[in-house]
Amino acid sequence: MQSADVIVGYKTYIDLIQDIIQEKQVISTAMTREKERCEAAIEQAAAGYRVAVVSSGDPGVYGMAGLILELLESTGQLKTIPVQIIPGITSATASAARLGAPLMHDFAVISLSDLLTPWETIEKRLEAAAMADFVIVLYNPASKKRDWQIKKAREICLQHKTPTTPVGIVKNAAREDEEIYITDLSGMLDYPIDMLTTVIVGNCSTRRIGEFIITPRGYAL
Amino acid sequence: MQSADVIVGYKTYIDLIQDIIQEKQVISTAMTREKERCEAAIEQAAAGYRVAVVSSGDPGVYGMAGLILELLESTGQLKTIPVQIIPGITSATASAARLGAPLMHDFAVISLSDLLTPWETIEKRLEAAAMADFVIVLYNPASKKRDWQIKKAREICLQHKTPTTPVGIVKNAAREDEEIYITDLSGMLDYPIDMLTTVIVGNCSTRRIGEFIITPRGYAL
Ligand SMILES: C[S@@+](CC[C@H](N)C(=O)[O-])C[C@H]1O[C@@H](n2cnc3c(N)ncnc32)[C@H](O)[C@@H]1O
Ligand SMILES: C[S@@+](CC[C@H](N)C(=O)[O-])C[C@H]1O[C@@H](n2cnc3c(N)ncnc32)[C@H](O)[C@@H]1O
Repeated sequence: MQSADVIVGYKTYIDLIQDIIQEKQVISTAMTREKERCEAAIEQAAAGYRVAVVSSGDPGVYGMAGLILELLESTGQLKTIPVQIIPGITSATASAARLGAPLMHDFAVISLSDLLTPWETIEKRLEAAAMADFVIVLYNPASKKRDWQIKKAREICLQHKTPTTPVGIVKNAAREDEEIYITDLSGMLDYPIDMLTTVIVGNCSTRRIGEFIITPRGYAL
Repeated sequence: MQSADVIVGYKTYIDLIQDIIQEKQVISTAMTREKERCEAAIEQAAAGYRVAVVSSGDPGVYGMAGLILELLESTGQLKTIPVQIIPGITSATASAARLGAPLMHDFAVISLSDLLTPWETIEKRLEAAAMADFVIVLYNPASKKRDWQIKKAREICLQHKTPTTPVGIVKNAAREDEEIYITDLSGMLDYPIDMLTTVIVGNCSTRRIGEFIITPRGYAL
């Protein structure tokens, strides 16, 4: 970001990095304008500027990296504009660190947003992950307009996991107003779950210890 | 690490952070001595020192975080020794960034190490993940002593994915001697895969564009 001429990103993220990007040109748009942001970034890069596109967490996990590459391809600029993707700490592991160590064993990351994916696909993945006893990490669990998906996801989990399976809920991980809740499949819907929240559902070995949840890796202690 | 009195870690990782930890007390052991390292760390912490335990990638993903918490519990020190887990960039997203954007949609992270997990459990998870069209990220894919698991994993993938499904192989991501290969399910065994490698197998939409692989999220372009 420090070596860039232009910073492109959603307004909330731009505000979080204000210290680093003083006196740079900034292009920011509303949350839903992902494509517009990417197009603006590519336009600036094509004009010869160094552009940094900012994403939350890791840009390659439901982030902007894929869209940038697709747009470069569809406009025939993949060979002329060099791209570097800089990985980050994704919400799954940022949230896990706040909860203890729930991801010490195999896990599945699933987005509950059915805006761009048919619900049947999401449901099939939830079923497969629950059946094979993965720890399950839910991104985009709910929003004001989408409230039934998390209920349905919980029901699917309950077909294969016990009601006492530990569940961790982290809102605004590593930001101001961070909220951390440890509960279980039976109680999870009593907690606030929204679009700034990541939900982690344990596997059959996940357990609470003190204020933490852990999924043992299997080291004989 | 800078505020710690004692640094504990596997020798290779200690070497990587030499600049940051000059003049600190260092306790380092061989790769397989995880439990011993954790016990040494806890002993130092119990004696009143600030201790940093160093892990590769994210300490909560097949790392040391869970073992530390379990050992604190089993020795009755969970309430007396405060622990903070600091998340990091895990190999899945570090490797994905080198390959393009293969993790833009739902993915499953599976370790192929059957030292601590029965192979039947691993196989069940591979089958479920392949069947439900997850992108699959393989950790611990092979070592000198473990060479058949990656072949078996590929066979299971081929039962549900086409032979041309893109596969990315990243060795030593973000380190010296980094190696990056893009191939497919049919050709993947021709590449070097060892215990410093992460393997990413695409879903049915994953495709190559230029030097990258991407899994489209589904934005209508
Ligand atoms: C479109 S995805 C972007 C994910 C992001 N690229 C990442 O790697 O974390 C948005 C979802 O990520 C999760 N998320 C993003 N920031 C978060 C935070 N600070 N705390 C908890 N969850 C977060 C939530 O599940 C949210 O609905
Ligand atoms: C015991 S796991 C530790 C994972 C680590 N805690 C993480 O979050 O990435 C070891 C496995 O992680 C992967 N790995 C670790 N470092 C890597 C690197 N620099 N490049 C590629 N894969 C790596 C390999 O699959 C390796 O077999």
